[in-house]
Amino acid sequence: MNTDRATDLNIRTDDLIDTIEHALSRRDLAAASAALDPVAPDQIVEVLDRLNARQCAIVYRLLAKERALIVFEALEPELQGELVRGLQDAEVAALFAEMDPDDRVWLLDELPASVAQRLMRGLPARERDLTAAVLGYPQDSIGRRMSPEYVTTHPHLSVGETMQRLRARIDDAETVYTLPVTDAARRVVGVVSLRDLLAHDDSTLIDAVMQPARTAIAESDAESTARVCTDLGLLAVPVVDNENRLVGILTIDDAARILKREESEDAARQGGVEPLGRPYLSTPIRRIVRSRIVWLFVLAIGATLTVKVLSSFEATLEQMTVLALFVPLLIGTGGNTGNQAATTVTRALALGEVRPRDILAVLGRELRVGVSLGLALGVLGFAITALVYDWHIGLVIGATLVAVCAMAATIGGIMPLIARTIRVDPAVFSNPFITTFVDAAGLIVYFLIAQAILGI
Amino acid sequence: MNTDRATDLNIRTDDLIDTIEHALSRRDLAAASAALDPVAPDQIVEVLDRLNARQCAIVYRLLAKERALIVFEALEPELQGELVRGLQDAEVAALFAEMDPDDRVWLLDELPASVAQRLMRGLPARERDLTAAVLGYPQDSIGRRMSPEYVTTHPHLSVGETMQRLRARIDDAETVYTLPVTDAARRVVGVVSLRDLLAHDDSTLIDAVMQPARTAIAESDAESTARVCTDLGLLAVPVVDNENRLVGILTIDDAARILKREESEDAARQGGVEPLGRPYLSTPIRRIVRSRIVWLFVLAIGATLTVKVLSSFEATLEQMTVLALFVPLLIGTGGNTGNQAATTVTRALALGEVRPRDILAVLGRELRVGVSLGLALGVLGFAITALVYDWHIGLVIGATLVAVCAMAATIGGIMPLIARTIRVDPAVFSNPFITTFVDAAGLIVYFLIAQAILGI
Repeated sequence: MNTDRATDLNIRTDDLIDTIEHALSRRDLAAASAALDPVAPDQIVEVLDRLNARQCAIVYRLLAKERALIVFEALEPELQGELVRGLQDAEVAALFAEMDPDDRVWLLDELPASVAQRLMRGLPARERDLTAAVLGYPQDSIGRRMSPEYVTTHPHLSVGETMQRLRARIDDAETVYTLPVTDAARRVVGVVSLRDLLAHDDSTLIDAVMQPARTAIAESDAESTARVCTDLGLLAVPVVDNENRLVGILTIDDAARILKREESEDAARQGGVEPLGRPYLSTPIRRIVRSRIVWLFVLAIGATLTVKVLSSFEATLEQMTVLALFVPLLIGTGGNTGNQAATTVTRALALGEVRPRDILAVLGRELRVGVSLGLALGVLGFAITALVYDWHIGLVIGATLVAVCAMAATIGGIMPLIARTIRVDPAVFSNPFITTFVDAAGLIVYFLIAQAILGI
Repeated sequence: MNTDRATDLNIRTDDLIDTIEHALSRRDLAAASAALDPVAPDQIVEVLDRLNARQCAIVYRLLAKERALIVFEALEPELQGELVRGLQDAEVAALFAEMDPDDRVWLLDELPASVAQRLMRGLPARERDLTAAVLGYPQDSIGRRMSPEYVTTHPHLSVGETMQRLRARIDDAETVYTLPVTDAARRVVGVVSLRDLLAHDDSTLIDAVMQPARTAIAESDAESTARVCTDLGLLAVPVVDNENRLVGILTIDDAARILKREESEDAARQGGVEPLGRPYLSTPIRRIVRSRIVWLFVLAIGATLTVKVLSSFEATLEQMTVLALFVPLLIGTGGNTGNQAATTVTRALALGEVRPRDILAVLGRELRVGVSLGLALGVLGFAITALVYDWHIGLVIGATLVAVCAMAATIGGIMPLIARTIRVDPAVFSNPFITTFVDAAGLIVYFLIAQAILGI
């Protein structure tokens, strides 16, 4: 029994990468090739993901033609794009013709328009039509991520007839595990799973076996559709036009792929970084710098607002230098409170728990949360500062904490909703920007309260 | 043709919730029941997700027994736990007996130990054994999330014989779309997909049809296993013990569910919030406050460090109040740079692109990135400050920006690796803590540079 055919998901890839990197560093292509030989294509994909661009191109070249195709199809579009630039035109055209229409669109989105057009012209007519159908939907819509290669059945067909249709399309359909059931006008009236087909006699009518269908309109947002698909654990969702006519199918593995990319981008932007689109250790330093510098400049320019605010209170500061000591604490707390609210609401938006029209409800909730948090911190801040300094300063710090927390929670909570309304990604708009804004606004509040209480 | 059986994934749930909330507010249970009647179970799940605890219990009670079971199984474990507390013991025991073993474990993890034990004792022997097998694996391991109900085949069996085995188990198996192939000692030697079974003659041997298997060891981390499963788009992964013997199966929809929970928790903790585990709009205010207050206190206490640092430089500040003006800008830039590095490295860790032993590589990269960013910002900062104030101040600001960016990027980059090494969640450890630490360290650097350059 050949137990080498079973490979643990977690462990062996690390060793394999070490072996290959070692072989490449000695320029021993035979050893690298031998190491790759017994490896399943999906694991080769993981290996390529972690190598740098140069290593990646060498390793890809070592694969036999048949395997190279399987591996290429499973790569991230960015890596496909990198590889394509290093291959000859004929090789690229052959790869491109073999890909599934939906995977082809992912790659096209990565390539320069001129290359994309040339590749499309080289396709056989049927493949070109299928691809064009998917390309016809707007960027970020689920129509652009669906597969146009589905197997359907009809309510008046039997299970046996449906199994025949399915076997006839078994090589090219995106999935055979979920079949949309359509009427004569191609409208979706249900779905039937292969599992249910196998559990019933051949003579049973589909009408008796099918389940109600959850469908997605092709123009709707890719991310939220993918999220509902994985949340509900639907193996496949029929994609329809506005008249409920079937145009494609979204499978759960494609949905998971969409979500992975979106989560990566959201996580990056919440930290004020442009997504790298490449594994960290194999990304050139200048590309990492580029992914951060623009945001850092924008935020630094925003922060000059705090210099302006402080210089307008410079006289107060000179009179009471002690006020300067609390500036980082106060604006830090404001920033933290704002980020907490923004994080919660951004996530709720992504999960569909909150919609932009709920803005007043969110405002009311965050105001109450902010005041509660501010009171808790403010009482503590007052007590400590009054003990260490004096009670006037304590009162200033306590009152400022209440005001800053209330303001920060409210702004942090409604910013993501405003971003969604004006069609900006809430993750882009949120944490770093909120911090900058809350910093400046918090300083104004602080010095106004100080002037009022201390009478300066 | 009944087109009501097709329901768009995105749109109609909103309307349905409005209808039900309206009916409940008028205490018109008949109207609520009528609205729910034509709705597919998975959509009822979405509705329950968005209602508050009281509404949720009422709506659940309105469902017919058969539908109630399907809906209950698909709910999030937290919501199941809430519902269970409102139901009678006999009802709970009946629900519990009908659940799949893996779903049962999710629910048990939510319930108090005494309730969990009572429910386990009430189970039929076979179900109790299956459940105990899953419960035997450590928290956060994939063994605890797998299903023990799989269909296997063997290399020497034919496709026809395998189809018979599959049909015999079609009602209780977790999936029939991927079958682990095992040898006489139950070791996994491959997998075969139902699609490939259907594409071959009944007489073909499994040995000729099966593919190499990617397996996961039951003790390995649930999150990273689930991520590899969805990344590779594997519909199911066989779970094995250390001797490669089959113990269960992980399906892609369960993998997506694990990731969704982990992503929610990571996103929350990166913003300094405890996960709510409940939809935002239906969570009581005091629970939202509780999810934030502890973090806010911890961070505020950390920030008193900045007050200490500044008061030790109070003499310098009194001499040169102008230095206070740049405090928020400088520490803000440090915090942003640190967050950028932490976000990138945390994500790379989660995706398996970086491991703790890469710490020196990360240190080297982030130092170079930090110096590059600092030089870019520093030159600009020097120029502007020298123009507006004088060139001495400009020099202080420029030099501080270089030093702070280099320090922040390095600390931000290695913190997530240290967290992982000491087995703390990198997301918990990272952004807010880094900001607090970088704030205090940045202030010290700032004033030391100022004292050196300005000679005070």
